Amino acid sequence: MSIGVPLPPGSTIGIFGSGQLGRMLTLAAARLGLKTHIFAPTGPDSPAAQVAQTYTQAEYEDLDAVKAFAENCDALTYEFENVPAETAKVAAHCKPLHPSAACLNVAQDRLTEKLFISEKAGVPVAPFEAIDSKEGLKRALQNLGGSCVLKTRRFGYDGKGQMIIRTEADIEQAWDKLGTQSVIAEAFIPFVREVSVLCARGADGQTAAYPLVENVHQNHILHTSIAPAPRDMGRAKELALNIMQALDYVGVMATEFFELEDGSFLVNEIAPRVHNSGHWTQDAGCTDQFEQHIRAVAGWPLGNPNPKHGVVMTNLIGKDANDWKALAREENSFLHLYGKNEAREGRKMGHVNRIVPTS
Amino acid sequence: MSIGVPLPPGSTIGIFGSGQLGRMLTLAAARLGLKTHIFAPTGPDSPAAQVAQTYTQAEYEDLDAVKAFAENCDALTYEFENVPAETAKVAAHCKPLHPSAACLNVAQDRLTEKLFISEKAGVPVAPFEAIDSKEGLKRALQNLGGSCVLKTRRFGYDGKGQMIIRTEADIEQAWDKLGTQSVIAEAFIPFVREVSVLCARGADGQTAAYPLVENVHQNHILHTSIAPAPRDMGRAKELALNIMQALDYVGVMATEFFELEDGSFLVNEIAPRVHNSGHWTQDAGCTDQFEQHIRAVAGWPLGNPNPKHGVVMTNLIGKDANDWKALAREENSFLHLYGKNEAREGRKMGHVNRIVPTS
Repeated sequence: MSIGVPLPPGSTIGIFGSGQLGRMLTLAAARLGLKTHIFAPTGPDSPAAQVAQTYTQAEYEDLDAVKAFAENCDALTYEFENVPAETAKVAAHCKPLHPSAACLNVAQDRLTEKLFISEKAGVPVAPFEAIDSKEGLKRALQNLGGSCVLKTRRFGYDGKGQMIIRTEADIEQAWDKLGTQSVIAEAFIPFVREVSVLCARGADGQTAAYPLVENVHQNHILHTSIAPAPRDMGRAKELALNIMQALDYVGVMATEFFELEDGSFLVNEIAPRVHNSGHWTQDAGCTDQFEQHIRAVAGWPLGNPNPKHGVVMTNLIGKDANDWKALAREENSFLHLYGKNEAREGRKMGHVNRIVPTS
Repeated sequence: MSIGVPLPPGSTIGIFGSGQLGRMLTLAAARLGLKTHIFAPTGPDSPAAQVAQTYTQAEYEDLDAVKAFAENCDALTYEFENVPAETAKVAAHCKPLHPSAACLNVAQDRLTEKLFISEKAGVPVAPFEAIDSKEGLKRALQNLGGSCVLKTRRFGYDGKGQMIIRTEADIEQAWDKLGTQSVIAEAFIPFVREVSVLCARGADGQTAAYPLVENVHQNHILHTSIAPAPRDMGRAKELALNIMQALDYVGVMATEFFELEDGSFLVNEIAPRVHNSGHWTQDAGCTDQFEQHIRAVAGWPLGNPNPKHGVVMTNLIGKDANDWKALAREENSFLHLYGKNEAREGRKMGHVNRIVPTS
C-alpha cells in the first residue's frame, strides 16, 4: 500500500517502538495536529508510550496484535530497524508502511546493505567479505590489508556486535565471541572523520537534504554532532540521495560515512529512520527531522531542511543527565529529556542542543 | 504552598483546562522530561487531554475530584483565568499553585484588576468607573468624555461581554444586554496600536521579558502578532514587570497595552497565563512561552527570552485551518494545529509562525 493524498490533521500514525525516537516523533506529530499509536513490548511508562495518544503493549511477533494495531492507524512507520520481517509484511498489507519493508530488509543485514549500496546504488563502501569460517576470516584478513573489523550481520548498534582484528593473533578471541552468528569482515578504514547526512524523501520523490554533520563517538556511542560540519562539498549528500532513490525510500534516512584523507567518502551504514545525529535539527530554525519524517510518512509536502544557525548536539548518557539543573541554566542551550527513570550506564537519557553563535 | 527545590524530571504538573494552551504546555513539559495531568470537564479528545499523560474529566466545582487531582501532582497551574476561586483554594491547599490564587482573584474581575494595577502597582490604566445603574452609566459617560466601552467585570474574552457606547442613545441597548451583570465603563481610548508584553517570573524573583509585540485584531479576535514590534522603548516591559512584582507572580503573564500617540502606555488587561500573543516564541530560537511557564511552575531556572529573528504569528480561525496543505508547503513557516475536529466559526484551530527574514 502506498500513500495517496496527504493524511488530514486528526489522522493517526502508527509507530513500532517506544523509545526516545518514537517519543520525539509523537511530539512532532502532535504539533501538526496528528496523532500517534505506539506498538511495543515495553511498558506504558516507556518514553514514547508516555506521550502518544494510543498504546498497544505486545510482542512484535504477535501478528494478531500487529494486524489490529495497523487497522487502527492511517499510516505506519518505526523508530528502529529491527522490526521483524514478518511483522513489517503483515503491517504493510493493512496500511502504508514507510520506509517500506524492502528498505527494512536491506538495512537489517550488513551484507545485504553493503551489496545493495555498492552494486544497486553504485555508492562506495569499505571493502568487505562475508565470512563463514575461521579459515575464511584468516583469508579475508590478508585480502583486507592485514587488519579488519569483524561485525555481526544483524542487530549490532553502538559498537555492540563488533570487534577490531589488528593481527592474526586476534582471530581466536574474535571468532569465539562472534563466530556463532553470521558475520562479515570490513577493511579497517583510516578515516579523517565520521560524518553523516540526513535526508528526507516524499512519496512523490521530492527530497530534502540537511547539511553534513560531523560526529564524535565515545565508547562507540555518539557523543557529539556538529552541524553543519566545517567542510561540506555536497558530495556526501549526493551519495545519500542516490541510495534513497535506489531504495524508492519514503521518510527520513541517516547515512553514516567515513571521510578519507583525499576528501572521498565511504558509506559506513544507513539507518532507515530518524537518527541521533539529526537531533540538532530540533533547535536549528528549520523543519526538524521528526516533523520531516512525519510529513513524509503522512504524505505531506516536506519542510525546509536549511538551518538558520549552527548547533552542537551532545548526548546525555547515563549519569550525564543528572546535570539537568546546570544544563537548564545555560543561556543558549535547549535541553531535551526522554522521560526515562533509570540512568543506567550507557543509556541515552536526553540531549542538549547548543546554539553556535553566528560570527 | 510554594516551590522549594526544582522538581526533578519525571514530576507531574497539573493543569486546569484542556484547550490548546494546555496542549502546548504539555508538549513543552514533555520535552523537559516532565509529565502533565489535565483537569477539565471536556472529553478525552479535547486538545490537551489528547497529549497529556493523565487526564481527569470532572467539573471544576467538584472539589473532591480537584483534591484527588492535586494530590496526584507535584505542582499546579492553569491555562485560563476563570478557574473558580474555591477550586483554586482547595488545589493550592494541597500543592503549590502558580500563578497564585491571589493573582487569579485579581485577574478574574476587571474592577479588581484595574484597581490593583493602578493603585497597588502604580501602573496607568484607561480611566474607568464601576457602574451599578443605568443612571450611573449616564453620569459615567459624561465623566469619561462622551463615549466609553461598557464591559462585564467577569468572563469576558475575544470581545464577548463588551459594547461600545458612542452617544447617550446607545445606553438603552447596552444596558439591556449587559446591565444584568456587574459591569464597568472604560474611557474609549484613541490608541495608535495594541501591543503586549510577555514576561516570566520565577519563584526566586528572577524575571525574563520577551520583546514588545504588536497585535492586530479582527472581529475582536487576535489575528496577527508581529514580534518584535517595530518600536520598543522598553517602557511597557518595565510596567509589566512592576505589576508582576506587586502580584508576587510566578509563571508567564501577558500584559496588553494601548499605546497612545505620545508614546505612553495604558494597560488594557492582564492574562495570568500563557497567551495567544506569545505563540510566536515557539519558532523564534529562544525558550518559548510554554517551556518558560513550565520552568517557572516547576521551580526551574528561566530560559532565554531573546529571539534570534523576527516572527509574524497568524491565527488560523475556523475555516482558515482548511488551508493546512498550502501552509505546510510554505518555506519559512511553522504550522501548529490543535487537534480540534470541528472548524466552527471563530474557533481557534491553529496558528502559523512565519519567520521574518533578517535584513
